[in-house]
Amino acid sequence: MEKIHSLTGMMDLIGNKAQKEDIANKIFYTEEVLKNIFENYSISEIRTPALENSSLFKRSVGDNSDIVNKELYSFLDKNEKSITLRPEATASVIRSVIEKKIDNETHKFWYLGPMWRYERPQKGRYRQFSQAGIEILGYPEGLAELEMISIVCAINKALGIEKPLLKINHLGNKESKQNYCESLKNFLEPLSLELDKKDLERLNKNPLRILDSKNPETQEILKDGPKIDAYLSDEAINILNLVKNTFSDDCNIEIDHNLVRGLDYYTGFVFEAVSEDLGAQNAYLGGGRYDELSKQLGGKDLPAIGMAIGIERLAALAKTYRKNKTSLSFIIISSKIEPKAYKIAHKLRSLNNSINIDVQLSEGSLKSKLRRANKDNASYALIIGEDEIKSESIIVKSLLDENSEQLVMDFKDLENFIKKIK
Amino acid sequence: MEKIHSLTGMMDLIGNKAQKEDIANKIFYTEEVLKNIFENYSISEIRTPALENSSLFKRSVGDNSDIVNKELYSFLDKNEKSITLRPEATASVIRSVIEKKIDNETHKFWYLGPMWRYERPQKGRYRQFSQAGIEILGYPEGLAELEMISIVCAINKALGIEKPLLKINHLGNKESKQNYCESLKNFLEPLSLELDKKDLERLNKNPLRILDSKNPETQEILKDGPKIDAYLSDEAINILNLVKNTFSDDCNIEIDHNLVRGLDYYTGFVFEAVSEDLGAQNAYLGGGRYDELSKQLGGKDLPAIGMAIGIERLAALAKTYRKNKTSLSFIIISSKIEPKAYKIAHKLRSLNNSINIDVQLSEGSLKSKLRRANKDNASYALIIGEDEIKSESIIVKSLLDENSEQLVMDFKDLENFIKKIK
Repeated sequence: MEKIHSLTGMMDLIGNKAQKEDIANKIFYTEEVLKNIFENYSISEIRTPALENSSLFKRSVGDNSDIVNKELYSFLDKNEKSITLRPEATASVIRSVIEKKIDNETHKFWYLGPMWRYERPQKGRYRQFSQAGIEILGYPEGLAELEMISIVCAINKALGIEKPLLKINHLGNKESKQNYCESLKNFLEPLSLELDKKDLERLNKNPLRILDSKNPETQEILKDGPKIDAYLSDEAINILNLVKNTFSDDCNIEIDHNLVRGLDYYTGFVFEAVSEDLGAQNAYLGGGRYDELSKQLGGKDLPAIGMAIGIERLAALAKTYRKNKTSLSFIIISSKIEPKAYKIAHKLRSLNNSINIDVQLSEGSLKSKLRRANKDNASYALIIGEDEIKSESIIVKSLLDENSEQLVMDFKDLENFIKKIK
Repeated sequence: MEKIHSLTGMMDLIGNKAQKEDIANKIFYTEEVLKNIFENYSISEIRTPALENSSLFKRSVGDNSDIVNKELYSFLDKNEKSITLRPEATASVIRSVIEKKIDNETHKFWYLGPMWRYERPQKGRYRQFSQAGIEILGYPEGLAELEMISIVCAINKALGIEKPLLKINHLGNKESKQNYCESLKNFLEPLSLELDKKDLERLNKNPLRILDSKNPETQEILKDGPKIDAYLSDEAINILNLVKNTFSDDCNIEIDHNLVRGLDYYTGFVFEAVSEDLGAQNAYLGGGRYDELSKQLGGKDLPAIGMAIGIERLAALAKTYRKNKTSLSFIIISSKIEPKAYKIAHKLRSLNNSINIDVQLSEGSLKSKLRRANKDNASYALIIGEDEIKSESIIVKSLLDENSEQLVMDFKDLENFIKKIK
């Protein structure tokens, strides 16, 4: 029978007890660490569906963005409605807040889940990928910016990210952004023959994104062009300096006036954390302020700042690992007593939530089962056979120390032993 | 600007600090409890993508099932390939195990994530819903059945499910299943004029599913029909009795020879946990053995047993709640010192992972901020103003006891205080 394959750019993750550096383990651990930090900052979970009306992303992420133009998984449902698998979650969060009529309140939300973009498969890019994110809603520029960067520092620290660089910039308010875009256009239009096709398209559709160009010739041209800081208010410059000064002990922060984010909805403060270790796709998290999005989606005036974290990239950089729970391997050495022995394991498991008890379900020799227990990094083997069932006892063998002798415990002692394991 | 709505049958979940009985909180808590149990049983996480080749579900869930006939979210991707949002995860897990060439090993896997079925919206059914599940692979009938039901009992206990009923049945092996189906067909065909359209369709496509009929007339007819237990081997009857006897202290277990699962791939032992409290859609988890599926998907001969848990339904039944972490509300009472004060909060948060510190980011009076702290169920308010910054101290006010006086602590005492909170 022909085999069926997974789709291009979509990973299977399988947890592996023995190899802490396995990418699946690192991803699961990274998610746990992030959730702990979000809780620690008193942020509430929000979970929106994977599917949305297609119009949501056209009106938020932007008709001119690469995402909406080329990368959406959009299709018609059985009712001929155009629906889309979310390429990011911010638009959905704001849609949800408006729909629930809580767009006049303050909120701190986090989310974590899969997103989909039909991209050319390449290193560090997947068609289904996982993003965590935070949206802080209802607070104008100020403390909310500090809160956001405080969380970035906490993430870098908890995961032991080496030499992280945080780039920050300010895109100004709606008017100053527009003024700067015009002057950029006026400067570049006479030089348009020197721009490549992609940059020319950017110049016409969303001139700010040209600052992001990977073409060295464009970057050379831009050196003589207008700079965004000349268009920024004192407040905007101040917030950049404030963020830099407040967290310079924790993180290497650089003000980079060329930093532009790939989504149309950003205004004001923006940031991006990058690492050399990632190669060409070097940003592992990023975000910024998007004060206009709620109104754009039919909601109230709702100041907002958010960030999204690329789980696969962050996990690839993580240098800390999950501390495994103590594991016990439960070995039944006679098939005649299996149900009775199993029932003992069933009871033992309920005594201590902070350990794992693995009942070996295969037939096999004691030797092969002990080998398996060692392979799974078990700390103890609990061994039970016909004699033990008769005498209501069990053999406890430490696997941590090869020289330690095995003990025979009666069931009551065993229960106390299990309860005390940490 | 026109508002954009969420899609029919797809929920937004928003965590709510103040209301533990809120459905979002109950769902998040239920997932946590399940993950803990899975860890406790030494089961590894597996995560497969949401999208698969459409052929996977046709070849596993079955061409004749309602799911594949009417409920799949299938569409063509930009490369004209037919892809489908998974309606369940077992087929994907087996596809993954075959693809990674580990279908000759034993595994214990758990998964948790969204699934999609285009169903008529009704109480207890969503078009995007969440399922957790377990697949125990590589073990023949026996201990693996006990392991599965042991986990069901642990789930019922941890979530305080009231009066759960576990129905179990045995569908026999491939041959006995076929023999029984034939005798059922032979019995019903002369009576086919008395069957409704749906049951007639079942009779032709998958006669076993007729046992599941909700039509009382069909059930009346079936009373005189052949019974599956007459076709079962002694081993099959034994495993039913063994399961019932082993766990009768923990759970109300009933052998129900009419129990048939909705997916084509089941063979052997099957089970379903139901609760009266759920109404018409009364099953909150179910599963069974599917020894043929791996071969059907092009893999090796891989005995397997699994179950799927409907998170929304299980959460609706849960009677235990998350114990909230201790929460502290950090209140800055002068905008002049905001950055300095914020930096203190940034440091305090890193001292204790098991508490939450919520920095109130809004402008506002001390009174309104204390009201907010109480509303969020904070245990303490930490209050800092210009005087406190000067004297390197902070005001600590207990919100647990209205009569307790507030304390002034210097930063060092404060750090020790924070570290000690549990």
